[in-house]
Amino acid sequence: MITAGVVGAAGYIGGELVRLLLGHPNVRLTAAFSTSQAGRRVDGAHPNLRGLTDLTFSPPDDLGEHDVLFLAVPHGQSMGNLLTYAKAAGTLIDLTGDFRLRDPEVYADYYGTPHAAPEEIPTFVSGLVELHRAELRGATRISVPGCMATAGVLALHPPAADGLVTGDVTVDARTGSSGSGVSAVRENLHAERSGALRVYAPVRHRHEAEIRQATGMPARMTATAVEAVRGVQVLCRVRLAEGVRERDLRASYRRHYSGEPFVRVVAERRGRFRLPEPKILAGSNFCDVGFAAGPGGGHALLVAALDNLVKGGAGAAVQAMNVRHGWPERLGLAFPGLHPS
Amino acid sequence: MITAGVVGAAGYIGGELVRLLLGHPNVRLTAAFSTSQAGRRVDGAHPNLRGLTDLTFSPPDDLGEHDVLFLAVPHGQSMGNLLTYAKAAGTLIDLTGDFRLRDPEVYADYYGTPHAAPEEIPTFVSGLVELHRAELRGATRISVPGCMATAGVLALHPPAADGLVTGDVTVDARTGSSGSGVSAVRENLHAERSGALRVYAPVRHRHEAEIRQATGMPARMTATAVEAVRGVQVLCRVRLAEGVRERDLRASYRRHYSGEPFVRVVAERRGRFRLPEPKILAGSNFCDVGFAAGPGGGHALLVAALDNLVKGGAGAAVQAMNVRHGWPERLGLAFPGLHPS
Amino acid sequence: MITAGVVGAAGYIGGELVRLLLGHPNVRLTAAFSTSQAGRRVDGAHPNLRGLTDLTFSPPDDLGEHDVLFLAVPHGQSMGNLLTYAKAAGTLIDLTGDFRLRDPEVYADYYGTPHAAPEEIPTFVSGLVELHRAELRGATRISVPGCMATAGVLALHPPAADGLVTGDVTVDARTGSSGSGVSAVRENLHAERSGALRVYAPVRHRHEAEIRQATGMPARMTATAVEAVRGVQVLCRVRLAEGVRERDLRASYRRHYSGEPFVRVVAERRGRFRLPEPKILAGSNFCDVGFAAGPGGGHALLVAALDNLVKGGAGAAVQAMNVRHGWPERLGLAFPGLHPS
Amino acid sequence: MITAGVVGAAGYIGGELVRLLLGHPNVRLTAAFSTSQAGRRVDGAHPNLRGLTDLTFSPPDDLGEHDVLFLAVPHGQSMGNLLTYAKAAGTLIDLTGDFRLRDPEVYADYYGTPHAAPEEIPTFVSGLVELHRAELRGATRISVPGCMATAGVLALHPPAADGLVTGDVTVDARTGSSGSGVSAVRENLHAERSGALRVYAPVRHRHEAEIRQATGMPARMTATAVEAVRGVQVLCRVRLAEGVRERDLRASYRRHYSGEPFVRVVAERRGRFRLPEPKILAGSNFCDVGFAAGPGGGHALLVAALDNLVKGGAGAAVQAMNVRHGWPERLGLAFPGLHPS
Repeated sequence: MITAGVVGAAGYIGGELVRLLLGHPNVRLTAAFSTSQAGRRVDGAHPNLRGLTDLTFSPPDDLGEHDVLFLAVPHGQSMGNLLTYAKAAGTLIDLTGDFRLRDPEVYADYYGTPHAAPEEIPTFVSGLVELHRAELRGATRISVPGCMATAGVLALHPPAADGLVTGDVTVDARTGSSGSGVSAVRENLHAERSGALRVYAPVRHRHEAEIRQATGMPARMTATAVEAVRGVQVLCRVRLAEGVRERDLRASYRRHYSGEPFVRVVAERRGRFRLPEPKILAGSNFCDVGFAAGPGGGHALLVAALDNLVKGGAGAAVQAMNVRHGWPERLGLAFPGLHPS
Repeated sequence: MITAGVVGAAGYIGGELVRLLLGHPNVRLTAAFSTSQAGRRVDGAHPNLRGLTDLTFSPPDDLGEHDVLFLAVPHGQSMGNLLTYAKAAGTLIDLTGDFRLRDPEVYADYYGTPHAAPEEIPTFVSGLVELHRAELRGATRISVPGCMATAGVLALHPPAADGLVTGDVTVDARTGSSGSGVSAVRENLHAERSGALRVYAPVRHRHEAEIRQATGMPARMTATAVEAVRGVQVLCRVRLAEGVRERDLRASYRRHYSGEPFVRVVAERRGRFRLPEPKILAGSNFCDVGFAAGPGGGHALLVAALDNLVKGGAGAAVQAMNVRHGWPERLGLAFPGLHPS
Repeated sequence: MITAGVVGAAGYIGGELVRLLLGHPNVRLTAAFSTSQAGRRVDGAHPNLRGLTDLTFSPPDDLGEHDVLFLAVPHGQSMGNLLTYAKAAGTLIDLTGDFRLRDPEVYADYYGTPHAAPEEIPTFVSGLVELHRAELRGATRISVPGCMATAGVLALHPPAADGLVTGDVTVDARTGSSGSGVSAVRENLHAERSGALRVYAPVRHRHEAEIRQATGMPARMTATAVEAVRGVQVLCRVRLAEGVRERDLRASYRRHYSGEPFVRVVAERRGRFRLPEPKILAGSNFCDVGFAAGPGGGHALLVAALDNLVKGGAGAAVQAMNVRHGWPERLGLAFPGLHPS
Repeated sequence: MITAGVVGAAGYIGGELVRLLLGHPNVRLTAAFSTSQAGRRVDGAHPNLRGLTDLTFSPPDDLGEHDVLFLAVPHGQSMGNLLTYAKAAGTLIDLTGDFRLRDPEVYADYYGTPHAAPEEIPTFVSGLVELHRAELRGATRISVPGCMATAGVLALHPPAADGLVTGDVTVDARTGSSGSGVSAVRENLHAERSGALRVYAPVRHRHEAEIRQATGMPARMTATAVEAVRGVQVLCRVRLAEGVRERDLRASYRRHYSGEPFVRVVAERRGRFRLPEPKILAGSNFCDVGFAAGPGGGHALLVAALDNLVKGGAGAAVQAMNVRHGWPERLGLAFPGLHPS
């Protein structure tokens, strides 16, 4: 049994961390920190937790000591406060964008501001378990990737690693409203956001840089806000290498993911759920990946879907924590998602 | 051709007024006033109007002169600025709650603050055309009722006026998110509001007072925010007077509403649209009303539906303007609504 | 460890039973029966279960033998096939409407057809654990109540049992589309059903009879189909007995439900989740109940919310199974629901 | 004043045709034909038309005579019954896919069946007014393009015609549920379709062939069913020719579309409606088109949005009819769409 604290616990990712940690058999949640909600009950901000906890939010002035500290704070704050956080816990699991990109120049390019602690970047291991499982064992600093990046990387990784795709990659990412967090701005109002197909990042979304870094592919990404609260779906259009056919894609995905507890290959010929669909993944830690190619090869569509707050955030963080401690990877992450939903 | 200005034109009701007045053959929209958006293009706040107008918002410091001024301002502001508004136009059409209740004590009771200009209340005529058509001809001060009040009154009026109902009336009102206006608060965020069934006013909603005033029935109202942007639906449970049957209700509604251009009686035995449904009324000025009773009488359910921004706001205001000027009542209000939608 | 089978496993309630039983530590799911899907994979009908089971649907011709058989079949089929089902299992848990009403005359009145096995009605115990916990210990025939009935009864029971309410009760029930099951009819098409506020049962919904039976109150119920897939919310307008105030309601609910693992009392003064809301209950077995009264007493609003497929169906069945076997009541039912969702 | 009939009037496109023709000043709607609904009231199938028409559906056995006949029938039926239709009207406006593709081989390839009347294909003019206005004057056979094709073509046409783009084009199309029509199949049930991001055509959607034909670009299209009833949005990823920058795109769009009554160029730097969004187009005949490119050129995103039942169907047909008769193009098509919605 270890102790864990969550900084930024009043946000949506923070709330999911609290939910998952309360249900985790090897963890005792010792504190939920929030500047704005300090002193209030945790189940006020997260009403789904009523009856499960009597915890109140603590001010982050005094973080105390924990075995693991989860950082669900705004971008920039993890690198800004790194020393403070590091003093409070032996293991940091960071959910911001601060330590995802290995190259501070790329960071500056995509985030529009210089990195505040470039020398600390190498101390972090990527929390994408499927690609970094070995490094995560015993890691003390973990950086959880962006939600759309996780989907894009898990879709592209097998064919990219196996040399099945070449040339440009077009990434079309769709996201629900919970990805925008709890900030109350007019563009996130229900009346404005409901039913939206808002192309809010036509070019150069930040997660594009993560996909490029992880896959080595020259991905070009567009992000659209769609009608959903939770959920990310990513479509990648790729050019297949000479002679590659759909069956080669299937073999590649199976080889890479057959042992993965949280990646399912979903690529059927027909049916209403023939390709990955976030609708049935809410609350689950699965990332479903699939593919389709025309009969003659040439091009293919790769698809991935996940719950942005779970496999795209809090669940991925817990999965990484499990791996880091050598626990069974599924611990505390068993919920499969609902259908219909 | 008359001139018209809209105060509070950047809000949702204000935007609908702009849309309807731009399409009205007898009106020239001379100004759209907004404090927060002054100087910006009207089609920035209301993107559906792109290509229809090059108007920019004016600051409300100098209102100029208009034949008609529509007041789509926050509650309290019409009574606070009444003299200013009255100087700027011969006719005022007020869409706030300020002059809807005839009794300032009732106002104070429901709004929690004393009325600022009780002596002006009698100078206003109710803009509910169906009950006040004669008074509206030539009226110079018109108060448009609340959206849920309009639905509730139009549902209750025929049987109440004909003595078909007795005793308590339970009113269950459901409303979309556009009724909350453009203010960005957390409870109106898409992630919080999406899919809601939020009983935000379990007792004593303000529109209850309007329904009581207009029908003389002791209505008790509950309001729930439902998943919709536009739309209000009101269900009234009533006790039928001795011997009254469903056919008497039908006769009453027909008698009262057969000549009404914007009230349709919808009370079928079966079918997916057997009773009034706001879903097919978005953008239209119809208020559909219907009813159902058990075979033996005793109790009945009365139902009304409308678009809160049109028949429950801007459309009602334009309809009242048409009546006030002796124009055909449907002028500028022909759009019937969409199906499917 | 016991064995369990599900009849009607391809439907929505059936799918939830499969999901819950696969995750239940004391149960081995031995068969999922379906006429229409026999021979096909279970995760084809229920794609959220991909990776969790390789089960295929069995034809219900030969039911085999199980410790418990769950009947998620169409109404009428449980009473029609009761002998067959009884031979296949020591314990039957029925999710149809067949054995919910104790009086076959009332059944005939609400279902429009005579009861096929009135002599068997007394052999069933109600699966509403909160009211029938003692009887359920060791019961071999259990009838799970209707989803809206469960909500209505849990909202009304404390004040009704404590004599705090008198006279008529108006019940306004709202339900998501999953309650209509998997039958493909035009009225359930997305384009027709999306955004609906469809008053499909203005008077005399079947669950009204269950509420009357369980509470002894003369409830009158209206049911509206709202925009949601899962979720039921029930509003009850009641008249308070002389001198009863909101604090008496609160005391009553606390007394009845303080020890209940799946009933939460939610009745706050303010906030976006001040009263029960199904939005945060999807997948959970909670029924949240709340109340609000005007300052002077007189009338009150009682509210309950649940997931119709879980606490209103499959979850209630599993909870009853747990009680029947003397297991911890929460076993297999720990998922708390999501926020935001 | 001309007479017009609609074949297939009980469907969603048919219902929109009825709505638009009832409101058209130069047209008298003489008949609404439907096999399944013959003898029933038109406002039963299309409840938004209550109070606007007393028409009943006629059986299509005897079509009578009309100036214009709109064919909103299932794919294959227009080419199958062409002679019958041609006898009934001087002008045919076909909304099926039968006469959209000029090359019967391409038709066979995309539709999976040989064309039934290849010799008649040249007798049809495309109903895409923006590209075929001159040919449409006096045309007697008009083929309205597919909804996603219209969006894709209007997005691609200016830069393609001006030689600003080269190489592959990736088309990502999103569509609401009304495009699936009124057929009741499980995949279109609300519970299955709600909140979907269903990649139902990962490769080779039929509208791809139309986009290729109209633009000459090697488009590769993917279609996703999204949460919406109405609305199509198309994203095209293109490679810009050497030296081409965003300002060149802007100039191209302006040049092509500045005089178009139903195409708006929407390409802003920021804001919640910076690029085309179908949410504000429901009921309107606008197709909004926009674009964004990275600072250095290279690639660009082109976006178009429309209401699939209006500009993507019935509205386009009416617009073509207006042009064919030399009437003002906006006649009967003035509704601008709603915000918020």
